Amino acid sequence: MPLEDRLTPPSTKPHTSVARVPNAWYVAAIASDLGRKPLPVTILGTPLVLFRTARGTPGALLDRCPHRNVPLSAGKVEGERLVCGYHGWAFDTDGRCQHIPGLVSQLDPDDRARRAPSWPAVEQDGFIWVWGSRDIAPTSPPFRFPELPGYTETRRTVKAPGTMHATIENALDVPHTSFLHGGLFRTAQKKNRITAVVRRYSDRAECEYIGEPRPTGLVARLLSPSGGVVTHFDRFFMPSIAQVEYRLGDDTHFVVTSACTPVTDFETLLFALVQFRTRLPGPLLKPLLEPFASRIFAQDAMMLGLQTDTIQRFGGEQFESTELDLLGPQIWRLMKDAERGHVESADSATVLYEKQIELLT
Amino acid sequence: MPLEDRLTPPSTKPHTSVARVPNAWYVAAIASDLGRKPLPVTILGTPLVLFRTARGTPGALLDRCPHRNVPLSAGKVEGERLVCGYHGWAFDTDGRCQHIPGLVSQLDPDDRARRAPSWPAVEQDGFIWVWGSRDIAPTSPPFRFPELPGYTETRRTVKAPGTMHATIENALDVPHTSFLHGGLFRTAQKKNRITAVVRRYSDRAECEYIGEPRPTGLVARLLSPSGGVVTHFDRFFMPSIAQVEYRLGDDTHFVVTSACTPVTDFETLLFALVQFRTRLPGPLLKPLLEPFASRIFAQDAMMLGLQTDTIQRFGGEQFESTELDLLGPQIWRLMKDAERGHVESADSATVLYEKQIELLT
Amino acid sequence: MPLEDRLTPPSTKPHTSVARVPNAWYVAAIASDLGRKPLPVTILGTPLVLFRTARGTPGALLDRCPHRNVPLSAGKVEGERLVCGYHGWAFDTDGRCQHIPGLVSQLDPDDRARRAPSWPAVEQDGFIWVWGSRDIAPTSPPFRFPELPGYTETRRTVKAPGTMHATIENALDVPHTSFLHGGLFRTAQKKNRITAVVRRYSDRAECEYIGEPRPTGLVARLLSPSGGVVTHFDRFFMPSIAQVEYRLGDDTHFVVTSACTPVTDFETLLFALVQFRTRLPGPLLKPLLEPFASRIFAQDAMMLGLQTDTIQRFGGEQFESTELDLLGPQIWRLMKDAERGHVESADSATVLYEKQIELLT
Repeated sequence: MPLEDRLTPPSTKPHTSVARVPNAWYVAAIASDLGRKPLPVTILGTPLVLFRTARGTPGALLDRCPHRNVPLSAGKVEGERLVCGYHGWAFDTDGRCQHIPGLVSQLDPDDRARRAPSWPAVEQDGFIWVWGSRDIAPTSPPFRFPELPGYTETRRTVKAPGTMHATIENALDVPHTSFLHGGLFRTAQKKNRITAVVRRYSDRAECEYIGEPRPTGLVARLLSPSGGVVTHFDRFFMPSIAQVEYRLGDDTHFVVTSACTPVTDFETLLFALVQFRTRLPGPLLKPLLEPFASRIFAQDAMMLGLQTDTIQRFGGEQFESTELDLLGPQIWRLMKDAERGHVESADSATVLYEKQIELLT
Repeated sequence: MPLEDRLTPPSTKPHTSVARVPNAWYVAAIASDLGRKPLPVTILGTPLVLFRTARGTPGALLDRCPHRNVPLSAGKVEGERLVCGYHGWAFDTDGRCQHIPGLVSQLDPDDRARRAPSWPAVEQDGFIWVWGSRDIAPTSPPFRFPELPGYTETRRTVKAPGTMHATIENALDVPHTSFLHGGLFRTAQKKNRITAVVRRYSDRAECEYIGEPRPTGLVARLLSPSGGVVTHFDRFFMPSIAQVEYRLGDDTHFVVTSACTPVTDFETLLFALVQFRTRLPGPLLKPLLEPFASRIFAQDAMMLGLQTDTIQRFGGEQFESTELDLLGPQIWRLMKDAERGHVESADSATVLYEKQIELLT
Repeated sequence: MPLEDRLTPPSTKPHTSVARVPNAWYVAAIASDLGRKPLPVTILGTPLVLFRTARGTPGALLDRCPHRNVPLSAGKVEGERLVCGYHGWAFDTDGRCQHIPGLVSQLDPDDRARRAPSWPAVEQDGFIWVWGSRDIAPTSPPFRFPELPGYTETRRTVKAPGTMHATIENALDVPHTSFLHGGLFRTAQKKNRITAVVRRYSDRAECEYIGEPRPTGLVARLLSPSGGVVTHFDRFFMPSIAQVEYRLGDDTHFVVTSACTPVTDFETLLFALVQFRTRLPGPLLKPLLEPFASRIFAQDAMMLGLQTDTIQRFGGEQFESTELDLLGPQIWRLMKDAERGHVESADSATVLYEKQIELLT
């Protein structure tokens, strides 16, 4: 009813970098956040309620009671069932209605109309994972986070106000670090000419940086005072995992693995696991690194928010890429092919695309 | 212009339990709230201004000055007229423009273009009532609240974030009281098998509960320590009145009558009058019962809000009823028939529908 | 996705008094507000970034980096360039991309895809002016504010929540002053019959008030204790300037010139210059007059906001004018003709329309 302003910014095609890949596991919550209280979450725009039964089994149902459409997340867990807070209808982890208080007539738990739609849910690596589709059963277990014995670990959850593609492109993008995080990690003075090799496989993409000198920023000098050879890989695993691996000489090894969850088209939750070992003892370094990590994550989230606001304001994206946008286009191709149901049948080891790019760093 | 998220919760038909019945009186305000200051209200989605002239007559006009479309509720009352705050155009309770400051030429108060649309308005039972239609004149006076001499009375206004149907169904629904208001009124242990008789007439519906024992909750035990026969009726009067009548033995008698006003499709104002007598003196009991009543009303409003949020999020309702939903379907039929202009011609005493339902309580 | 309420206020045509005139200069900012930090502004619904280079030249670009669509206003100025805060792309005042950090390949600043659209921008009379169109080059310099040596000046910026037409009509409307600003300036008792002469030219409109007595309000009595002849002109210059000129006898002369900027269809920025001389010394009078001016501007902005809310709520305007609406219809005709590209070819001195109206004041 309210009149919309007739805005006239330069017209932009309504395209956005949104690709929906439902046949995949996504992290729905940190396992320890799911206690006796049901937890409302949204995945791929669908409101779900997570709950954990008395035996500890996780369940994921549509967050809507079939009776009068109140959210089941306003209810409570009793034994193996989630009980609606309005009239007490009780559902098991398969969404079957097992009890309706006051009803004299016989109850059929398989009555479809009384059933709450359910999603596959499992607990793994400290997360509750939910399979994004009700139509196709899970074809594999969730992504396994690296096991790196002796490494120091820290976890972090970031609410990124951007598409899953923009969030992952940002997590794996090198050039922006000199500007957005300028001084913290890389500096704006670009003197070194290095080579990046981009490869796409049927289920992942990666970028290897060759000839990269030790970064000149504060943190890098702290970690590796004597310099040393840098090994640096940025990796994407379909459809939602971003991984940065960094070696500085023999002592320093960082792996940051982020599982991304598309909450809605323009909001992504990023569950990051940072694993590292350095010359310095991890427990000593961890409290020093955390403010640094917080700032990086906050700057990225801020920039993704500005990007999303601009895209929404103009009614679409108009991105102009250069060869420095190394992984973004490959990630987009994999996501979009999967959304269309078109997945290349090559085995996982076959390189489907490879390109070398010169850049200054 | 902003892009909408492409959400994909399970598709739901855009149906909602909204029935608009304009040919009826609705409570627009509590009479004592309408003083010298004009009062903006919304009924059936239409913004109105209520005002009371110097003589005390209530008026209801469209809340928009015909001149430059500012709300008349930003003006003031002068004598028998409501004067716009922008340029001083002055309207009587019929909406006729009686004065335009500065104008030299002759003013015709019956000039339609300068007239503010007006609605019938009367004061009765401590409320200002407005007739919901401009096209059809009132065919009867407003609903009369019960007169119960010697009873203790308390009034309460609740803003319910739900459709008028959902609000009335909630007000007359028994099964939810054990859950949503669990412990306060009824308890979740259901041991008693009772009978409910539902009847629909041409202009109302009712449910009579037969064989109901004294409720086991705290309040019931307080009011009727020795038990006694329960008489319990839930009644609906077209299109907006919900009434619960409860007798416990000879001493205790409660009548809660609620006049509902559809502010917009998903917001309802409920003006409740609670009338009771008990073994205990009313003035003593009233301050004890009020926190209890407040909690009940707040819990119901909260649940209606969650229901509305869920319905709007999914783009429609998908209700699955059982035989325990005693009055809701009958109320819906009466409302929807009236919206369509289809009213059964039977006299008011004829039972058009009757059904007995067994239930546990 | 969320269901909209089916509101049913009386149906209103979706017409609103919005006319978009892009081929004109608009004040984008106060010159002193544009320092080293880029400034986001919106003109005619288009998000722009204003910046000032090291040499002091103002630039106006679309507030969107062509690379990843983040707002350029989140960047910073380096020398003669505006540098994006995400990846460091650097643009000159013509919007040409002059540098992409890390890029090895040759950069062509005239590459259209990498260019940020730019708008003509100049600094004049203490304001940054931006030409509203990218398609047609400026055909004249911006409007010149009056130069009145020896006058006291005060500037004021008002955010008016109304269309540019409603804001200018309000600024040049006499009758509302008795009501909205009642007592401050004119009083509601209207005893004097005066004549107004309205004239429209090809590029402006004016209203001359003949026979107006000294206003009876407090301020007027303060300024001109002995009365005297009043000369009063209200003027509109296409498409965005409102001017009120007031003389009371020989001593008192007020000129209020307001440059309006259509931020969006329903939000207008008004940059006012008040110039005056009186019998009393200006520096002494200025602090006394400012609270008075503040109240006038705040009351007008409040009323424009109520008007806009009502128009949006009803889905359109339905204005009923009288002969007292002296300039509004002439302003609308000039604006609407210009929006349609239809401008009368008469020279600036030719009176295209003239009418005398009697009114009470």
